[in-house]
Amino acid sequence: MVRYKAIISYDGTDFSGFQRQPHCRTVQEEIEKTLLRLNSGQAVTIHGAGRTDAGVHAYGQVIHFDLPQARDVEKLRFGLDTQCPEDIDIVSVEQVSDDFHARYNPHSKTYEFLVDIGRPKNPMMRHYATHYPYPVAFESMQLAIKDLVGTHDFTGFTAAGTSVEHKVRTIYRADIRFDEERQFLIFTFTGNGFLYKQVRNMVGTLLKIGNGRMPVEQIQKILEAKNRDLAGPTAAGNGLYLKEIIYE
Amino acid sequence: MVRYKAIISYDGTDFSGFQRQPHCRTVQEEIEKTLLRLNSGQAVTIHGAGRTDAGVHAYGQVIHFDLPQARDVEKLRFGLDTQCPEDIDIVSVEQVSDDFHARYNPHSKTYEFLVDIGRPKNPMMRHYATHYPYPVAFESMQLAIKDLVGTHDFTGFTAAGTSVEHKVRTIYRADIRFDEERQFLIFTFTGNGFLYKQVRNMVGTLLKIGNGRMPVEQIQKILEAKNRDLAGPTAAGNGLYLKEIIYE
Repeated sequence: MVRYKAIISYDGTDFSGFQRQPHCRTVQEEIEKTLLRLNSGQAVTIHGAGRTDAGVHAYGQVIHFDLPQARDVEKLRFGLDTQCPEDIDIVSVEQVSDDFHARYNPHSKTYEFLVDIGRPKNPMMRHYATHYPYPVAFESMQLAIKDLVGTHDFTGFTAAGTSVEHKVRTIYRADIRFDEERQFLIFTFTGNGFLYKQVRNMVGTLLKIGNGRMPVEQIQKILEAKNRDLAGPTAAGNGLYLKEIIYE
Repeated sequence: MVRYKAIISYDGTDFSGFQRQPHCRTVQEEIEKTLLRLNSGQAVTIHGAGRTDAGVHAYGQVIHFDLPQARDVEKLRFGLDTQCPEDIDIVSVEQVSDDFHARYNPHSKTYEFLVDIGRPKNPMMRHYATHYPYPVAFESMQLAIKDLVGTHDFTGFTAAGTSVEHKVRTIYRADIRFDEERQFLIFTFTGNGFLYKQVRNMVGTLLKIGNGRMPVEQIQKILEAKNRDLAGPTAAGNGLYLKEIIYE
């Protein structure tokens, strides 16, 4: 078998997330259906670097899969890209060694979260940014977000009842900028891994801090107390983008 | 009867255009269905400043309609906005004099056209910009677009067989800029009116000039010859936005 790594992008709006599940349209299922056709009717399983939830978008999701024979990678990319539905694009395909694993090989992930603070609402962005039409103090969020950088136990920012035992992760970069023209707040997080709903919970908390309903020190408190109840609400999935994955 | 003017925005993706037509989902039909409910089951007809085609978006379409009694305009806006489908937003509502007509009162219209020249393709923008992954000389288009400014007979840029007799229009502003971050060419046109498919034909021609397959002087030639065959292809509707309408 020959192993391939592919970078893919998708519009998460019409998917119930990345991972295959019964009776739902998923990214995994659509790509596997396409690979089945390209592989003479033999089933192919893909493995993604991370699962994205319903409505979450990706510019740089990474998958790997095996095919029985070596292929021209550009022809394979083109075939997959043109035969996948239009809300999935295949950015690149390369052959990798047999022991490469999209999920288990060490890597960093970068997520972006778009918040539309403009008025009036922009109907073109309703699936691509979370609308938050309330006053926000940019400086408070800029101060608070820095407390997320570093190695922490992120229990307080993950969904309650998650099955993952080890909840220590490292965030290398966490920042926020304001796109004046589009009236977007753009949050960027790079880390060695993120817990379930961690990014959306961090953004929900930062917006509450920006809106003055939580103190700037709240991030530190949540990290120390490891208590989800101290954090803000989970921001909607439509503003979240899996931007880039870099392997060591 | 009391006359109201409203500014509306919509995502054109799932509409067969603005104007009501049988067996199709249109912006006009959706707003009229909502007004019917808000007007105790009495039908209300809306008049738009312009018809937009299938897939074309609007930030600043203007409509007018009559209701039997005076309303609080913010309550009316809110009611319409929340009861219209999520791909239509009601930006503002104001009471106007009985002789105001969204279409016939003199006004200028501004259209924007987004061309995504980035690679790889961005699946999130597939309905919101026209992808043109070919080399384009920005300077050629910048020179050529200036020839569109002024009062001209735009016959060469309208769809063949159009029923409008008078084809002289004035363009006050025509320019192009490059959004580096998003890799978008943004064309902007302001005029006292535009013929059917005029903006999309102008953009299709400018892209062909940018791509070097037509000379920079082609715009002048088309205006002089009034011949549609000399112009480039019609650019797709998904990149077009009705941006703003200003009444005299």
